[in-house]
Amino acid sequence: MFEFQLHHTEGQARAGSLTLPHGIVETPAFMPVGTHGTVRGLHPEEVRRAGAQIVLGNTYHLHLRPGEAVVQALGGLHRFTTWDRPMLTDSGGFQVFSLEGLRKIEEHGVQFVSHIDGSTRTITPESSMEIQWALGADVAMVFDHVVPGQAPWELAEEGMERTLRWLDRCRRRHSELVDQWASGPVGQEPRLGSPLPTSPLAHWQTLWPIIQGGTHDDLRMRSLEGTLARGPWTGIAIGGLSVGEPKPVMHRVLEGLAPALPAGVPRYLMGVGFPDDLLEGIARGVDLFDCVAATRNGRHGSAWTSTGKVNIRAASLKLSEAPLDADCDCETCRRFSRSYLRHLFMAEEMLGLRLVSIHNIRFLIRLGEQARVEIQRGTFDRWRQTWLERYHTRRGES
Amino acid sequence: MFEFQLHHTEGQARAGSLTLPHGIVETPAFMPVGTHGTVRGLHPEEVRRAGAQIVLGNTYHLHLRPGEAVVQALGGLHRFTTWDRPMLTDSGGFQVFSLEGLRKIEEHGVQFVSHIDGSTRTITPESSMEIQWALGADVAMVFDHVVPGQAPWELAEEGMERTLRWLDRCRRRHSELVDQWASGPVGQEPRLGSPLPTSPLAHWQTLWPIIQGGTHDDLRMRSLEGTLARGPWTGIAIGGLSVGEPKPVMHRVLEGLAPALPAGVPRYLMGVGFPDDLLEGIARGVDLFDCVAATRNGRHGSAWTSTGKVNIRAASLKLSEAPLDADCDCETCRRFSRSYLRHLFMAEEMLGLRLVSIHNIRFLIRLGEQARVEIQRGTFDRWRQTWLERYHTRRGES
Repeated sequence: MFEFQLHHTEGQARAGSLTLPHGIVETPAFMPVGTHGTVRGLHPEEVRRAGAQIVLGNTYHLHLRPGEAVVQALGGLHRFTTWDRPMLTDSGGFQVFSLEGLRKIEEHGVQFVSHIDGSTRTITPESSMEIQWALGADVAMVFDHVVPGQAPWELAEEGMERTLRWLDRCRRRHSELVDQWASGPVGQEPRLGSPLPTSPLAHWQTLWPIIQGGTHDDLRMRSLEGTLARGPWTGIAIGGLSVGEPKPVMHRVLEGLAPALPAGVPRYLMGVGFPDDLLEGIARGVDLFDCVAATRNGRHGSAWTSTGKVNIRAASLKLSEAPLDADCDCETCRRFSRSYLRHLFMAEEMLGLRLVSIHNIRFLIRLGEQARVEIQRGTFDRWRQTWLERYHTRRGES
Repeated sequence: MFEFQLHHTEGQARAGSLTLPHGIVETPAFMPVGTHGTVRGLHPEEVRRAGAQIVLGNTYHLHLRPGEAVVQALGGLHRFTTWDRPMLTDSGGFQVFSLEGLRKIEEHGVQFVSHIDGSTRTITPESSMEIQWALGADVAMVFDHVVPGQAPWELAEEGMERTLRWLDRCRRRHSELVDQWASGPVGQEPRLGSPLPTSPLAHWQTLWPIIQGGTHDDLRMRSLEGTLARGPWTGIAIGGLSVGEPKPVMHRVLEGLAPALPAGVPRYLMGVGFPDDLLEGIARGVDLFDCVAATRNGRHGSAWTSTGKVNIRAASLKLSEAPLDADCDCETCRRFSRSYLRHLFMAEEMLGLRLVSIHNIRFLIRLGEQARVEIQRGTFDRWRQTWLERYHTRRGES
């Protein structure tokens, strides 16, 4: 369990497979984000048919609504949502640190004001572990101190050092939870008689650390060293990127980390990304990605295609019989015309948001699948360059 | 084509089958409403899997958005929306007459102000036929003069008489369109290379008249006589009911019409209904129903169940592992708990609206299927009484 096998490499790019309690994730892979226990606007079957191997749940949002006690009583996030493949939860760190002006950071944890009912709450490294344990995803993330995009060295160091101290606390609490569970009565299983099969190890869970340090290469390296010194780990995440810094800076940080990261562990670049970010990340050794852009853009009628972005409301689509992207194999492109999709958006019909979200999700997942094939063939770098050129220059023609 | 076969009767209740260019509709049947060329919130595959044999499109809405010219250019409403089963369009009459204060009724037609862009538009009996022909549904409806729910005799008579005069004009224009098409070059087919099969008769279309006369039995009978005198027809609709009058009044009107309606023609009760309305209508000889309540209630979190209505936001559902309705075979009930559905509504996730809409649609469609079986067995009336008693007294227990 939690085993990662590296099958092929080409430069820093990697093709591997990660075994988790609920299944195998072939990498590189994009993970759709299911904020409230649903990938926004989509049915779990649609997410599955789009090829998703793993989805992400948001600890912050699920803690506030419906609350981890409800999810646990209903048998955990897998049974509650009926998603039976691997799942990862973030720690809530990114969300609470985003509540600028509504949160107070202390060594103990973060006090914040709920965006829903205005109540005061606290998340600590320990409670983040407890919440994530109750949610029961395959992978839990460490509660980290996230600093703003282009934070100065001193602030970035503070966040990075605190993240290491919190890593110790997270690991301790998480180990306790695992030990308690492992020494409990056999068959101590979620009680809901769900229609979905659940592996006897479904409630087993691993914990991944997060590398911080902002855009400062020396801090990133110290963060990595401190993290590895506390290892071993079954996966390592890189946080605090794609938060406002220029893309070349993100690339430089990734390039600095890649040679120092252990080869046998999957690397997860948090909150990234857009189609070009995926290819640039993969070229720099990243195995896993997540981002809400696919569904958020989909809801706003912005579709990614192999020839660039398409605004689904554009008047030029009014009579277009063509699919969103002639190269795409998603359910939307196989069935519906641009004209119909435009009509749904103009008439503010929910189906439109859904159909474009399905397309965007599939677009990123397929990009991971294609990259994997190209890495296996040793043609990834050439393919990536051709792909990016077409994507950046054609601007949504069809 | 357009043949109706009556297989079984029990009292006034009927089990039949209606052959249309895009397929057979086994009656009694509920038709989901696809206002803007989509059953709100649902994918055509979901509507199909819910057992829908025929859906309804709204001429008024489609005329304004995207406009019938767009739909026709894309190959008609079937290809545009990818719904390949039978379809019926209303005439726009009900919608324009609902625009109280924004419309002017003349013998020529109705002038109204578009609710979208404020432009002034006119629909006449002739243009309604032209719009519906361009949309290309299997069944077009006559442009009728709808009067308010409990209109006095004089106003109801005016609307009823005008509906008969407009029926003449609709029939004339519709016949011209059919003749033009039939004498045109062979294979004058919609041009879109759609992935869906289209019958060579797909653009054939029939026209159904609408009985008006408000709640006045004598006017209803005159409307029916005038309509039959202008026949024969392949179907007859009953309009202007379920618009505010007490339910016993609607039942009385239906009871008055039933013996006088020709047995070999399907009867369509427009804009009805709720679960109990379906059973009461079937008992009074109705074969077809349509109503937006299933999806509208679904979007508002109100679910019909065999034991009454359930408010999906109720606190009592918070930890309920039960499906919405243990007796239901819909996709939602087979997969999701009340607790999860409640969570989706509390978190304002679109998936919630969809899942409850799927349930409500399936609930009405299944009611038609069950009624059909009971009529075939000769046990409909007893079943209906038991069903209604349980529905009205149990109030959503599970």
